[in-house]
Amino acid sequence: MSGDSFGKIFVLTTFGESHGPGLGGIVQGCPSGIPLTESFLQKELDLRRPGQGVASTKRKESDRVKLLSGVFEGKTTGTAIGFFIANEDARSKDYSKIKDIFRPGHADFSYEQKYGLRDYRGGGRSSGRETVSRVVGGAIAKAFLETLGIKVYAYTLELGGIRAKDICLEGIEQRPFFASSQEVVPIWEKRVQQVRTQGDTLGGIVELVAKNVPAGLGEPVFDKLDARLAYAMMSVGAVKAVEIGAGFAASSKLGSENNDFLTSKGFCSNHAGGILGGISSGQDIIVRVGVKPIPSVAKPQKTINKEGQEVRLEIGGRHDICAIPRIVPVLKAMFFLTLADFVLLQKRNK
Amino acid sequence: MSGDSFGKIFVLTTFGESHGPGLGGIVQGCPSGIPLTESFLQKELDLRRPGQGVASTKRKESDRVKLLSGVFEGKTTGTAIGFFIANEDARSKDYSKIKDIFRPGHADFSYEQKYGLRDYRGGGRSSGRETVSRVVGGAIAKAFLETLGIKVYAYTLELGGIRAKDICLEGIEQRPFFASSQEVVPIWEKRVQQVRTQGDTLGGIVELVAKNVPAGLGEPVFDKLDARLAYAMMSVGAVKAVEIGAGFAASSKLGSENNDFLTSKGFCSNHAGGILGGISSGQDIIVRVGVKPIPSVAKPQKTINKEGQEVRLEIGGRHDICAIPRIVPVLKAMFFLTLADFVLLQKRNK
Amino acid sequence: MSGDSFGKIFVLTTFGESHGPGLGGIVQGCPSGIPLTESFLQKELDLRRPGQGVASTKRKESDRVKLLSGVFEGKTTGTAIGFFIANEDARSKDYSKIKDIFRPGHADFSYEQKYGLRDYRGGGRSSGRETVSRVVGGAIAKAFLETLGIKVYAYTLELGGIRAKDICLEGIEQRPFFASSQEVVPIWEKRVQQVRTQGDTLGGIVELVAKNVPAGLGEPVFDKLDARLAYAMMSVGAVKAVEIGAGFAASSKLGSENNDFLTSKGFCSNHAGGILGGISSGQDIIVRVGVKPIPSVAKPQKTINKEGQEVRLEIGGRHDICAIPRIVPVLKAMFFLTLADFVLLQKRNK
Amino acid sequence: MSGDSFGKIFVLTTFGESHGPGLGGIVQGCPSGIPLTESFLQKELDLRRPGQGVASTKRKESDRVKLLSGVFEGKTTGTAIGFFIANEDARSKDYSKIKDIFRPGHADFSYEQKYGLRDYRGGGRSSGRETVSRVVGGAIAKAFLETLGIKVYAYTLELGGIRAKDICLEGIEQRPFFASSQEVVPIWEKRVQQVRTQGDTLGGIVELVAKNVPAGLGEPVFDKLDARLAYAMMSVGAVKAVEIGAGFAASSKLGSENNDFLTSKGFCSNHAGGILGGISSGQDIIVRVGVKPIPSVAKPQKTINKEGQEVRLEIGGRHDICAIPRIVPVLKAMFFLTLADFVLLQKRNK
Repeated sequence: MSGDSFGKIFVLTTFGESHGPGLGGIVQGCPSGIPLTESFLQKELDLRRPGQGVASTKRKESDRVKLLSGVFEGKTTGTAIGFFIANEDARSKDYSKIKDIFRPGHADFSYEQKYGLRDYRGGGRSSGRETVSRVVGGAIAKAFLETLGIKVYAYTLELGGIRAKDICLEGIEQRPFFASSQEVVPIWEKRVQQVRTQGDTLGGIVELVAKNVPAGLGEPVFDKLDARLAYAMMSVGAVKAVEIGAGFAASSKLGSENNDFLTSKGFCSNHAGGILGGISSGQDIIVRVGVKPIPSVAKPQKTINKEGQEVRLEIGGRHDICAIPRIVPVLKAMFFLTLADFVLLQKRNK
Repeated sequence: MSGDSFGKIFVLTTFGESHGPGLGGIVQGCPSGIPLTESFLQKELDLRRPGQGVASTKRKESDRVKLLSGVFEGKTTGTAIGFFIANEDARSKDYSKIKDIFRPGHADFSYEQKYGLRDYRGGGRSSGRETVSRVVGGAIAKAFLETLGIKVYAYTLELGGIRAKDICLEGIEQRPFFASSQEVVPIWEKRVQQVRTQGDTLGGIVELVAKNVPAGLGEPVFDKLDARLAYAMMSVGAVKAVEIGAGFAASSKLGSENNDFLTSKGFCSNHAGGILGGISSGQDIIVRVGVKPIPSVAKPQKTINKEGQEVRLEIGGRHDICAIPRIVPVLKAMFFLTLADFVLLQKRNK
Repeated sequence: MSGDSFGKIFVLTTFGESHGPGLGGIVQGCPSGIPLTESFLQKELDLRRPGQGVASTKRKESDRVKLLSGVFEGKTTGTAIGFFIANEDARSKDYSKIKDIFRPGHADFSYEQKYGLRDYRGGGRSSGRETVSRVVGGAIAKAFLETLGIKVYAYTLELGGIRAKDICLEGIEQRPFFASSQEVVPIWEKRVQQVRTQGDTLGGIVELVAKNVPAGLGEPVFDKLDARLAYAMMSVGAVKAVEIGAGFAASSKLGSENNDFLTSKGFCSNHAGGILGGISSGQDIIVRVGVKPIPSVAKPQKTINKEGQEVRLEIGGRHDICAIPRIVPVLKAMFFLTLADFVLLQKRNK
Repeated sequence: MSGDSFGKIFVLTTFGESHGPGLGGIVQGCPSGIPLTESFLQKELDLRRPGQGVASTKRKESDRVKLLSGVFEGKTTGTAIGFFIANEDARSKDYSKIKDIFRPGHADFSYEQKYGLRDYRGGGRSSGRETVSRVVGGAIAKAFLETLGIKVYAYTLELGGIRAKDICLEGIEQRPFFASSQEVVPIWEKRVQQVRTQGDTLGGIVELVAKNVPAGLGEPVFDKLDARLAYAMMSVGAVKAVEIGAGFAASSKLGSENNDFLTSKGFCSNHAGGILGGISSGQDIIVRVGVKPIPSVAKPQKTINKEGQEVRLEIGGRHDICAIPRIVPVLKAMFFLTLADFVLLQKRNK
């Protein structure tokens, strides 16, 4: 399968560019009889919408998802679920001046090398806008996983190098930046304003926790649950690092410190992030994701054009200061998609 | 496909447990006409052999790989390449006393939950010994990639929290721990001896660099080159974290710092780790991998048995102090396998 | 992958039901730089349109295909190609009276068993209308294969048990029934009228020939070219039999009769249908497909409802007398899709 | 995935040539806890053994299958099952004289075109000997399906154009040719002797019936149960035609004749072969397979060598007169593999 599909049984396949008619996808493998409506999907999609926080672009996209198949009388039929999100606010002319220029940190150069041609309008297929389809696919997975009581929380742990002190799983979606706690919000807001003034951008770290995941998910060897989660997360543009549980910190611990001991009441700690030998243990699944700063800085940059000549680039248009918070629901969607697939794969052993 | 297969066109499928007749695998998709011999594979496999460094077990395994198909008169025929490594030194009785006990940090608990039964001898399929098949599969990929001039270097950057100061790509395979430079070796050796005396174990960080990778490898959206590399690396037991290029460090940089500017002479830096928008840019591909300490500590541990009763566990047998250095050729093999797959996938655009 | 996807590198994934908003699909893996327009796709799709021949329903569907992504300035970009065909003439009320009845020969019974519920309007996902997406996907494959000079001819060889005497590859698309020759057309037309009067339906046999297919396509063992062609053809509703080359007739021949001898000028015959050991030989690829009569007969039929009670069924609505000719472009599309996939797979050996 | 793998969840991957060290495979996805022994597999494999009937070669191969992994204390562990069958009687020198000659009806020509080189000893990967791995894989599927009460019968219906009059499902494996009934056996034996004297070979037709298959197996659109069965059967060398239920005969029937009516007691007939809309209906699944005569005739044949020069070929060695009866257990194995995969896929809807 080519790279627009994710999953083995519960499979999302997507299409679309930021400046064509729209974007969408197909979910295969969703069990029949799961309650599903457009408004449920829309609610998830709205969390990703730009123009909500101080770090986001003001570009207006209503991003209305339309269900095209696979749902009948409010329930999934078990057959392919098609969906579509029309592009409403795509101003192609914004991009004409960068048509022949390779923007630093973007896929312009590598796409040109790969395909010999490229849709230069807003990055074409490499645009972050492709993630709308992930969010819808993930929401379908969520609808299925909710019938099993599985929940996923996703929140920003660090922004621009400033780490939040607390994690409060309640109220995340109401907080700016989907911050892990309220105390850090004004500090991050100040930092964002400062960087915006400088014409620069920021990165951050997102943490995700899945609860009520049954033990036994994941497959030996290559399709370990952590391997598929790393794959899922790293497939999102701007992500450059992924950790499970203690992650890199485990590298400098002793074995006796890092092991999670078991008592008759359960595990005593969760350095493993809920995954042992690649298989879920029934504990919380914990993933952390490093997000790079957005490459579209307002400051002038040095780069080259298609002829290899050096040029000075000043990017206009409307751009976010940080992939956070919009990336948060996208990463959550990838978590749901990964879990849904493994829940179904595990049915063979039941 | 189930989880014993890796790749889409260049596909490795493996089998085997540490205490059965042996382990092996099948490589599909290798182009025809590539020179390949058992001795070439054996050389790679020997790098993973235990009993070589101070961090390794003294258990003796000659690990002889035998080619079973797909090679004729010294060249690949283009058809499935089967191979086998017999288990020679498998003392099953060593494990009988932990038959009903869930060892902390191991897959015992999660496998029991997943399958309802498990091969308790040495971890069965979850044993680190499964990686012999990865090394052989990776060596086949290497044979193919060498015809294109692609090279991969893998070295230990940090052990037990002590980071090496230098990176010298020459002579890695001759250095203990596959250390990134010689200066750190005596320090690590001392640390290993110390921890061994304590009955404890260590983790570390491995870095990998691929050179001469053509621009254009990777697929948009889900099968980005970095996503597949994260998947590949995280699928190796003991790995808990993966970074590309600047990795987590990028999260606290400004966009203007993190972007790699382009001049007519090429890129000015490589924070991206050679991957832009998920597609290789022609620069070095850089991956860092966090390895947890080995869970089999000699110290007594608290855990439970299958009946849920608390027990005190003292692991006997021969165990490594650290997954490093033996994990290094395994990670390198995963890099080769990932690249070989993408090189073939990219042929559709040529 | 679930069953809405076809192919390994050149992959078509589809969605849609006859009575929802519409149908569509995503093509992955099409090489970049292939000329492609909506009007090219529309031309292929128009061949499948109902209401053209005496055997077809009078139901009016304009079936306009809309390209949603993957094409830029008239050429494929190498990324996912999304497309959509809106349902314009879907009268749901026509089907309400058969809501709880299992129509003989249809998927009603088996879908109910599989999913526990079903979209009863026009068969839902099991409707023959899903084939519009195949035709569009196949047309994209055709656009690619035409750049290599590969052609596929598809024609009706037999209708209602009456076999055509000749095969004339020129002018097929202009002839009623896509008949293999003109002489049989009036005979078939008479037979169709006769059966229509009886309230009954007909089946037939379709033959397909691919020309200029390079030698070397197909993979050993399971993915033989003939195996994938059989899979492709049999996946089309109403198909109950598939033959390659001499097909069943080869079963009663002697080996010396059936072998195709080779001279310095090439093969002396083509009983093998252009495939040896599952790999194309460079000869014409020949496939024959048996199509059952359409199950929606106007005559009253005995069946049961969801409660298991026996009922007398009289199907109203607009129905075709025969899946031929509309199935012909669908089968041709499946041939294109199969070949496109193998052409790309074979690039690894080049 | 390349073409040495079959299945989506229950996956068989094979390797091996007739003149290397041996052949084998890996089964992924078999549920845990299924009783499985080498002797069970051996029993199935023995049915395929040469030298049993008058139509078979006298070549002696003991074909001992060895289980390499995935079974512990007599039960499947749920992890990859590896197996191996050593080649014991491979006389390479027999083949040296046809090294540069393309044997008519064999894969010699097409493999040379595909790969640019080939293992000429006994056909290499294209040898019918690869089917030993299918039989073992199918036997593992059988072990799983037996726990659900599913049975598959496979028998020869026609040999050399002579059709059996009766079908008696009892005692098939005891009858020569796996004949569908005893009455035809002496007639076939006479025909085989006659053709052997002429230095020629025969084809035939095999029928397969699966009983107790639950309704609901198969997936909409491309992965219909009949599509996957056609794929499975046609992937076996020498197969040139596949029919489901009435097959080609349905093409000349009226819809009212071909439909299987339903009463409160069940279906009144089974022209559909137990599959409606690609999904099993709970009736017997019926498949018929056309097998071409073996191309290795003793009679001299005209062909060319690698230089394109015309040569006269006289094949020595030990060859079967007909792929029947040895192909019968192979086809049965493919049926088991197909069903096992769909049984597991259907679990997502339960």
